[in-house]
Amino acid sequence: MTDTIPTTGTRTGYLDRHGVEHPFGDAEAERQVRSDDRAHVFHSWSAQAKIDPLPIAAGEGSTFWDYEGNAYLDFSSQLVNLNLGHQHPDLVAAIQQQAGRLATVQPSMANDVRGELARRIAEVAPGTLNKVFFTNGGADANEYAVRLARRVTGRRKVLSMYRSYHGGTSTAIALTGDPRRWANEPSDPSVAHFFGPYPYRSAFHSTSPEEETQRALEHLENVIVLEGAGTIAALIAETVVGTNGVLVPPPGYLAGVRELCDRYGIVYIADEVMVGFGRVGEWFAVDAFDVVPDLITFAKGVNSGYVPLGGVVISDAIAAQFDDVAFQGGLTYSGHPLACAAGVATFDVFDRDGILDRVRDLGSRVVEPELRSWLERHPSLGEVRGRGLFWALELVRDRETREPLVPFNAAGPDAAPMAEVAAACKAAGVWPFTHFNRVHVAPPLVIGEDELRRGLAAIDAALDVADRYARA
Amino acid sequence: MTDTIPTTGTRTGYLDRHGVEHPFGDAEAERQVRSDDRAHVFHSWSAQAKIDPLPIAAGEGSTFWDYEGNAYLDFSSQLVNLNLGHQHPDLVAAIQQQAGRLATVQPSMANDVRGELARRIAEVAPGTLNKVFFTNGGADANEYAVRLARRVTGRRKVLSMYRSYHGGTSTAIALTGDPRRWANEPSDPSVAHFFGPYPYRSAFHSTSPEEETQRALEHLENVIVLEGAGTIAALIAETVVGTNGVLVPPPGYLAGVRELCDRYGIVYIADEVMVGFGRVGEWFAVDAFDVVPDLITFAKGVNSGYVPLGGVVISDAIAAQFDDVAFQGGLTYSGHPLACAAGVATFDVFDRDGILDRVRDLGSRVVEPELRSWLERHPSLGEVRGRGLFWALELVRDRETREPLVPFNAAGPDAAPMAEVAAACKAAGVWPFTHFNRVHVAPPLVIGEDELRRGLAAIDAALDVADRYARA
Ligand SMILES: Cc1ncc(COP(=O)(O)O)c(C=O)c1O
Ligand SMILES: Cc1ncc(COP(=O)(O)O)c(C=O)c1O
Repeated sequence: MTDTIPTTGTRTGYLDRHGVEHPFGDAEAERQVRSDDRAHVFHSWSAQAKIDPLPIAAGEGSTFWDYEGNAYLDFSSQLVNLNLGHQHPDLVAAIQQQAGRLATVQPSMANDVRGELARRIAEVAPGTLNKVFFTNGGADANEYAVRLARRVTGRRKVLSMYRSYHGGTSTAIALTGDPRRWANEPSDPSVAHFFGPYPYRSAFHSTSPEEETQRALEHLENVIVLEGAGTIAALIAETVVGTNGVLVPPPGYLAGVRELCDRYGIVYIADEVMVGFGRVGEWFAVDAFDVVPDLITFAKGVNSGYVPLGGVVISDAIAAQFDDVAFQGGLTYSGHPLACAAGVATFDVFDRDGILDRVRDLGSRVVEPELRSWLERHPSLGEVRGRGLFWALELVRDRETREPLVPFNAAGPDAAPMAEVAAACKAAGVWPFTHFNRVHVAPPLVIGEDELRRGLAAIDAALDVADRYARA
Repeated sequence: MTDTIPTTGTRTGYLDRHGVEHPFGDAEAERQVRSDDRAHVFHSWSAQAKIDPLPIAAGEGSTFWDYEGNAYLDFSSQLVNLNLGHQHPDLVAAIQQQAGRLATVQPSMANDVRGELARRIAEVAPGTLNKVFFTNGGADANEYAVRLARRVTGRRKVLSMYRSYHGGTSTAIALTGDPRRWANEPSDPSVAHFFGPYPYRSAFHSTSPEEETQRALEHLENVIVLEGAGTIAALIAETVVGTNGVLVPPPGYLAGVRELCDRYGIVYIADEVMVGFGRVGEWFAVDAFDVVPDLITFAKGVNSGYVPLGGVVISDAIAAQFDDVAFQGGLTYSGHPLACAAGVATFDVFDRDGILDRVRDLGSRVVEPELRSWLERHPSLGEVRGRGLFWALELVRDRETREPLVPFNAAGPDAAPMAEVAAACKAAGVWPFTHFNRVHVAPPLVIGEDELRRGLAAIDAALDVADRYARA
């Protein structure tokens, strides 16, 4: 298999915004970036005086560089959006080309790249999901998916999972099943949370994946009945839960969800903002589980986040309900041509370079066996799970009790062991994705095999730090 | 005054997405765009089977072209976002340059163009508004502004105006004071609406702008007292109400709002998504009224919508509250480098080409006298109002009773007179912005004086159609 992007790491400098090349180590340039940032940029999900954002000077393929010239292998694909890596030449060219011909057109007009991207998404989407409502990102995709479901069912309530993230705007954060919701309550009051399957920490005292599936579905049906099926517009679930743990649904679970939604007239929304577009080796992750939702939300991988873009793929049955009745939602940048052009280029690259095959191959041949082999050597490694190029290492103090390496939602000194693991990765030139007591493996899908092995070796070594906190 | 963009309208073709030039009149290309659009694109705020979106092939300066080669002078600046016109060479170059060096970087890192744009916004923002939280558009800017206000006050309720638009996501649509909210209720339940000043159709039976100001403020204070000042986190108002009527606040009104917010400990949020960045001849429209809000939300004009971008400018007092306590909001594309690069270029162009002066000059020397002169000739013209390059023509059936040319929120046959006015403009090669019984004048700020006069002449002629429905 030839690599789409050759191994990188040989840069000696970066371009400034005027196109002038600078060598790494320009302390004045770095100082300016830091001072502008600290004085004027207000950051997401942060106490502003407690952060020290690293200035990034350049990126290429799976690598990015700071101003001192330190190279980091990007094992988090930024926020798990950079599926085609930094500065993919085809995406860059598509953006430059589109910028030069027609940067933007309002949503009420028709546009070639917007239409082409919608068609190509429809071509790979399962079942009759043939229309696309474009948004700017993942949160608003989920907002509008819920709105569609409410309108067609005439019901309001939405079920979503504990241990989930669906975005930051009012309804999206209400759907979210992690601590980011807490400070934002009450938001949308018509949301109820249920437990999804999580064999390693089963909420149902199950002892096998099959039992977990069966009990999780029984639990879900109980919630539906007790919340009142006739009050429930939609159920939303990440097909593979992302930030909250790379929780791959056990066999039969999603088929059971589909069946329950059908039985009770509930719209099934699959949130594939993080896992769509190749992350698990499929266009849409539902394809790995043979289910067809009514709505799929996407963002991130659709164009690797080179231009903000998200959307909802809509089934014919739902879309038809808005043929004569107006859809009550919209945004200035819906179907933004520049964003869509980068999406069309993404399809071209996936097709030409066999990205889905590549992900399946690297995942099953390189990542999975490597990570599983660590179970023998690292007492802090409780479980390894994942699919494609999306894996979690769940770190524990004790394999018997499964006590997490750090407490749920830990901060400050309580979170120190995980901070040390992350620091060890960075010192070895790998930028990891860590969350709670987990390290995720989520590199760009174009990562070279040698880079992948090098990054995994660095994480392997960093787990020695975690081992020190674990009872052997 | 030299024109930034020379008069356009001489194109004979367009570029496809591969950079190949095509002559206008390629029926097959147009058919493909239409068929992709109709089959796969789900449009904002529309009954999908009742629309017929016009395929756009090219844009330049104040003009865009359909596939047949018809040129339209863009008097709506798309959705009043295209402040620097179509394909401004400096913005295009900035996007191409940034795409070639670093398209995207996650929010938690520091980035040069993100920091520079935040600094330059802070430099032109009034008072101590020195930090910027970047979002993808206007709706999420308002969502996060409200969230900031709720957090710092510990209160939940938000006051907003009838006749306003604040965006489509849950909280933004709840703030909205126009019919787009109706189908989305209940959304955020902690919003109460009040009446703003509107001298032409006073809710307060006032007979002069001064009286309107005084009575509108009295009304607002009544609402504050009766809603319970201690329950109110924020008041949000478009500095000049945009889509709902180009309602310029009468003298003293906004100063009075500021004073009431101070008196009752309420955060004052100015929504400048539509009117910021030059539309009314100021960086921020509040500068025309000598008030300093606590938060300003922006989008659109910040980079003319070439790349989705919005944000909240935050006062030092509010920002400081999040030095040690985490801000509970965020999004994957916060501070997107490609979007920010187009914003930095916008500042460069505004500075170099004196855009603000240009807007004031064209507004007061060309637009205002021209529109006012029509009052003598068009019995359907009830009122002319506006500022800079942002004007409304309020059309009526009867100047005495002020009965609107079409009913509030009219659709179908009821809206026919306005549809005919719009059609007359388009037939004359001018793409108008119409809403309810109004035609707005909102061309790109770089429009040539000759183009401006030509567009105004077309609207002037189109008003003859409206006159037929009016009692003289
Ligand atoms: C599964 C999932 N849904 C929704 C979102 C929200 O997307 P955005 O940050 O673009 O609003 C995310 C972001 O990480 C996500 O992972
Ligand atoms: C005043 C105002 N606020 C907010 C918005 C919402 O912005 P967006 O469509 O980018 O979400 C708009 C859009 O027209 C607006 O005019």
